[in-house]
Amino acid sequence: MKIIFEQIGTIDTPFKTTENMPIQSKGAKGIKGKIILNKEFTLGLNDLSGFSHIILIYYFHKSKGFELETKPFLDNVKRGVFSTRAPKRPNGIGISVVKLLNIDKNVINIENVDILDGTPLLDIKPYIPDFDIHTIEKRGWTKNKTLNLNTIKSDKRFQ
Amino acid sequence: MKIIFEQIGTIDTPFKTTENMPIQSKGAKGIKGKIILNKEFTLGLNDLSGFSHIILIYYFHKSKGFELETKPFLDNVKRGVFSTRAPKRPNGIGISVVKLLNIDKNVINIENVDILDGTPLLDIKPYIPDFDIHTIEKRGWTKNKTLNLNTIKSDKRFQ
Repeated sequence: MKIIFEQIGTIDTPFKTTENMPIQSKGAKGIKGKIILNKEFTLGLNDLSGFSHIILIYYFHKSKGFELETKPFLDNVKRGVFSTRAPKRPNGIGISVVKLLNIDKNVINIENVDILDGTPLLDIKPYIPDFDIHTIEKRGWTKNKTLNLNTIKSDKRFQ
Repeated sequence: MKIIFEQIGTIDTPFKTTENMPIQSKGAKGIKGKIILNKEFTLGLNDLSGFSHIILIYYFHKSKGFELETKPFLDNVKRGVFSTRAPKRPNGIGISVVKLLNIDKNVINIENVDILDGTPLLDIKPYIPDFDIHTIEKRGWTKNKTLNLNTIKSDKRFQ
């Protein structure tokens, strides 16, 4: 079954190419961007400014095709794509939790942005610790590999 | 711009109607379900069993239309839809973090399931605390409203 979504806005960021980008919002401290929401959705932003963090769901528009096994940025061996956050996946859906700075009509200023400039936005949800923070037992192949999240950057592998 | 995704599998759960469901996976402790991944994607599950929790991205297939202001299950006043997790939204995209029990070929057994039976799956990502746990300052209108997450259930409002 095909599922059709509509772009509801665009994410403006300093990252003009997929190379040399932070690989997660946790590795993008202080980097600013803005969401330009299509004006017809502005009313849906009511009450959002009360939240300090929001979940963005967006389309990896520059990522074409996919591999079921792929080398993620944090590793040098191939991993099943669903065990990674790599952009080349069967459906190119990305999620980032960013800091909400302020909202001016249909424009949302954000921080900790790890997103490519011009990315089509699909949804915004509030980040709610009671919903979104989970206690885990196992972190799979990422164990001990996330220590350099602040310095590691993307390369050409998913172009 | 329209963005077209493909259903990659189906989520089987005990919830046959949208009424009387847990409203978040945090309120669905012990409730089991399974993901039936389309077989052509099975290779993409390699390495996933090392993770105890996974993020499911799916389509709210029973939710038709949307309202820009809506009464969420946790409140009695209308809120901007992007400040809620309500299913009736411009793009009906849902996310749930569930516990991964085990994987048998293309079938993933899961727990803490707050998802409607038959839901079309769009993506699976590993839940990684270093990526996904954020320290917030403000939780907006949800402050003091998430205390009964274990007992509150959905009603008819989004049918």
